[in-house]
Amino acid sequence: MPSFDICFSPELLPLYNLRGRVAVVVDILRATSSIVTALAQGVTHLVPVSEVADCQALALQGYLTAAERDGRQLEGVDLGNSPFGYLDGVVAVRGRSVAITTTNGTRALHLSQAADAVVVGAFLNLGAVANFLREQQKDVVVVCAGWKGNFCLEDTLFGGALAQQLAADFNTTDSDATLAALDLWQAAAPDVAGYLLKSSHVRRLNSLESHKDMEFCVRQNEYDVVPLYQGGQITL
Amino acid sequence: MPSFDICFSPELLPLYNLRGRVAVVVDILRATSSIVTALAQGVTHLVPVSEVADCQALALQGYLTAAERDGRQLEGVDLGNSPFGYLDGVVAVRGRSVAITTTNGTRALHLSQAADAVVVGAFLNLGAVANFLREQQKDVVVVCAGWKGNFCLEDTLFGGALAQQLAADFNTTDSDATLAALDLWQAAAPDVAGYLLKSSHVRRLNSLESHKDMEFCVRQNEYDVVPLYQGGQITL
Repeated sequence: MPSFDICFSPELLPLYNLRGRVAVVVDILRATSSIVTALAQGVTHLVPVSEVADCQALALQGYLTAAERDGRQLEGVDLGNSPFGYLDGVVAVRGRSVAITTTNGTRALHLSQAADAVVVGAFLNLGAVANFLREQQKDVVVVCAGWKGNFCLEDTLFGGALAQQLAADFNTTDSDATLAALDLWQAAAPDVAGYLLKSSHVRRLNSLESHKDMEFCVRQNEYDVVPLYQGGQITL
Repeated sequence: MPSFDICFSPELLPLYNLRGRVAVVVDILRATSSIVTALAQGVTHLVPVSEVADCQALALQGYLTAAERDGRQLEGVDLGNSPFGYLDGVVAVRGRSVAITTTNGTRALHLSQAADAVVVGAFLNLGAVANFLREQQKDVVVVCAGWKGNFCLEDTLFGGALAQQLAADFNTTDSDATLAALDLWQAAAPDVAGYLLKSSHVRRLNSLESHKDMEFCVRQNEYDVVPLYQGGQITL
């Protein structure tokens, strides 16, 4: 039975051997939720980059630009880090490509490239990711983007939710991180949005807009897509 | 109100500023539980060292030696990493000093030295540590030794138990790590030993002896001692 582990922070990735495994990169608030939404809305592919300058260089090649730092959209780019940017019709996204840089998510994607496959996970595509992992039958490591390199609740809850879905097909009991995430998910599942209202990260983003984002980002199985990060691009 | 945070792994310590704060180093299974027991049983002081060779060098100066790797006592030393080594009377410990090296605990102590004070915490002295922290009125970071650098359940539970005791006097809601530890503690508190039986670390140590150790190490407030690590030594 393949193993299921969770890495709570990109800073802990050196402790994990990703070779031969599938990495599921998650940054629920909001990078991976936005990436999943973007592809579900017809974006052709996304290129995650480290710096805003890299975004702007790709804009010259026709890319839309999406950039966020500390939870805020930067000046002079087309999109921020909200999934609603791909839904509200202000920017036409279907058929376009997007260069994206975010505080935590981009870094987690880059650091996960040693894995056999890098999947972009979110509550929005939880079931689709679970099905993909069952088909792959390889060891899984969920890579939490975290908050500025450290543990965060929302990515951990996603790890717990995914572990619960896969408990029959994967070994979810050999990792303390997975055991903890499963218990936290059990506490949060009846009201995930309510649970996350206590999270320091969510309170940091506290505003009408971010609350709306958060409620959207915890919706499960909104999109049946499995974005893969390979060759520097995220595509379906 | 001073802040209360938990660092789930020594690998994450670079994300924390320990200056001006009190660090509570915890390695429930079993380094800090043994250190607390040793001092409560009349050991004068302990010197945590990185290598077994350092232990042996101190033996020439009259120190007892305690050494463990991967949960096992090493050959040619006086004590392993079990608190019962200080209780069972096989080795006379009262009035003696001990040079100690362990897989995870020693490293966490060394990495915490930037803090204003470094306290050795365990369930065995939980209440005494809580009282000390209330008197200090400084920001607190619990430094979990973890298992080989990664998250482990038992140290996290100690962080949650301490946070619960201090919730009226410290800000325990601004850190996702603390929020998670509090919820895990709530799940575990009715039967901590039973809860930890599912931990990967505890199952790794699985034997009659280690089970007896684990049940002892989760007993609360057995000893009213607050060991401090300063100048390379742990003393009361």
